Amino acid sequence: MRIAIDAMGGDHAPKSAVEGAVQAVKEYGVEICLVGIIDEIHKYLSDEDKNNNKIIVIEASEVISNHDTPVTAIKQKKDSSMVVGLKQVKEGSCDAFLSAGSTGAFLAGSLLKVGRIKGIDRPALSPLIPTTKGLCMIIDAGANLDCKPKNLQQFAVMGSIYMEKVMGIHNPRVGLLNVGTEEGKGTELTKQSYELLSRLNVNFIGNIEARDVAEGICDVCVCDGFAGNVLLKTTEGVAQVIFDILKGVFMQNAVTKVAALMLKKGLKDFKKKFDYKEVGGAPFMGIDGIMIKAHGSSDARAVKNAVRQAKLLYDNKCLEIIRQEISKLEVDTVENAE
Amino acid sequence: MRIAIDAMGGDHAPKSAVEGAVQAVKEYGVEICLVGIIDEIHKYLSDEDKNNNKIIVIEASEVISNHDTPVTAIKQKKDSSMVVGLKQVKEGSCDAFLSAGSTGAFLAGSLLKVGRIKGIDRPALSPLIPTTKGLCMIIDAGANLDCKPKNLQQFAVMGSIYMEKVMGIHNPRVGLLNVGTEEGKGTELTKQSYELLSRLNVNFIGNIEARDVAEGICDVCVCDGFAGNVLLKTTEGVAQVIFDILKGVFMQNAVTKVAALMLKKGLKDFKKKFDYKEVGGAPFMGIDGIMIKAHGSSDARAVKNAVRQAKLLYDNKCLEIIRQEISKLEVDTVENAE
Repeated sequence: MRIAIDAMGGDHAPKSAVEGAVQAVKEYGVEICLVGIIDEIHKYLSDEDKNNNKIIVIEASEVISNHDTPVTAIKQKKDSSMVVGLKQVKEGSCDAFLSAGSTGAFLAGSLLKVGRIKGIDRPALSPLIPTTKGLCMIIDAGANLDCKPKNLQQFAVMGSIYMEKVMGIHNPRVGLLNVGTEEGKGTELTKQSYELLSRLNVNFIGNIEARDVAEGICDVCVCDGFAGNVLLKTTEGVAQVIFDILKGVFMQNAVTKVAALMLKKGLKDFKKKFDYKEVGGAPFMGIDGIMIKAHGSSDARAVKNAVRQAKLLYDNKCLEIIRQEISKLEVDTVENAE
Repeated sequence: MRIAIDAMGGDHAPKSAVEGAVQAVKEYGVEICLVGIIDEIHKYLSDEDKNNNKIIVIEASEVISNHDTPVTAIKQKKDSSMVVGLKQVKEGSCDAFLSAGSTGAFLAGSLLKVGRIKGIDRPALSPLIPTTKGLCMIIDAGANLDCKPKNLQQFAVMGSIYMEKVMGIHNPRVGLLNVGTEEGKGTELTKQSYELLSRLNVNFIGNIEARDVAEGICDVCVCDGFAGNVLLKTTEGVAQVIFDILKGVFMQNAVTKVAALMLKKGLKDFKKKFDYKEVGGAPFMGIDGIMIKAHGSSDARAVKNAVRQAKLLYDNKCLEIIRQEISKLEVDTVENAE
């Protein structure tokens, strides 16, 4: 398997991308194409790495930043690391693409340069958030702000396949994000989506409330991109604020500092549980290629874990399975209509 | 001032409602009408309380539960504590109504039995959530799942008045919940609402992300009820999960238990910060009467604090100010259209 990495994307580029790539090659035996400004990339490669035939560097002279307008940037910066990396997948020389750069450009570029899986109307950005029981995929978390019930139906299928094949969860629980758990609750979108999800060949557990996501009520949380974005960012924000306040409590004086030391192991495990770097990145599900959006502040470990994610998607043939399941869905819809 | 309290609503009814009422009478000098089953209420009143002419008990033989369908319950259970309490406000014998009962019935009942302030299209359920800088009003948090820009404009006006008059915040910062901070982001609803909010006579700070709410980026977070509900419940859920995990860390063994003791004061302050019982309840803004929805699990202190909220709304003439500001808004709209 060969994975293209946008070496110039993210807050710590190209250092994190390059170091993460080197670690991933050693750990997972994959081949990596580092795409970006060669001189910049070479700074972080040892002579041994440069001679490692599993690490290839591809020149791309331009960089897309968070300040660029996504669609314009993808169209105009033809020699950017984002566009050149995406082309590797489109042309078949790489099997996956990974970037910690601008989310907007990543989404627009994936759609424009690689395209959707046949039958998928709207690909979905699908981050995983930590819960007390493991991880929960939020699908969609911001790629599609206005959704139709059919979109949510496809999100449910893709999310279920991901959690089963990549995360190894048997019969993943799929919940529909709503304002209450009773059937018939919510907006027109959630009511109609409920109907469609009930008829799917997934383990649909019904409506769920945002309150129960962190506790791990479901493995896949299906929602429109606006609601998913609010859920994701509220989770990040509240966790961050609580950690900051706790830090203040621990650092208050000599006694509290000693107490913090006494709790060290427990607190470390606790922090690890809520660490996005362990999770990897957010797959952009429904694109006709394996696309992983890593967090903007990814370090080498986060990049390495995102590579692992891409490899699991590849090894478990997730794209093929999604193609099959979506084509079945279309047949069902036609038959139901007849 | 006289406040009607639904004595039969909430997980700890009528105990919490009655005890909270008794405390509030002592502390704030208000008069309270406890509405519900007299025998049940009397169990928690001392002889002194019974003879206190500031505590009046009004019989209502029925109770609306969370399992009842809201609109049907309001229409059929005419002698319920919820309906009888609301009538006290409608008929002018009480100045406010407070309930910890079914949120759905509270919203439906307020609309059907008391009605809206002239000019307000959609009243909004507006809880306050703790942030590092104080409290932030989420308006709307679930009363209106599908909103129009005009609704959000009115939410902004009402939220701003509440935070200024009741919370004493000078020139409260009003943010529009969105998926990014740049102007032009979001759905049709947020784009059009941005326009309307920009022209208001409030301190509009533009789009805000859910990530920044807990940190206290704004005093009023304007959003449709679906997004607000997700924000509110995610905040509650994530905080609860983190507290539970922390508790586990502290209780692990003898050493960690000692450490917890050493941190006692800091942790207590920390917990207090995130304690909804301190906040009181969620006002239902835009109803032509002061309506406070207390949390279902309210204890006496939470009920007492909700009474304080009602008193502040009353003392500061918030309803009159909302009436004035909304009528100005209508004049502006007509003038702009001409």
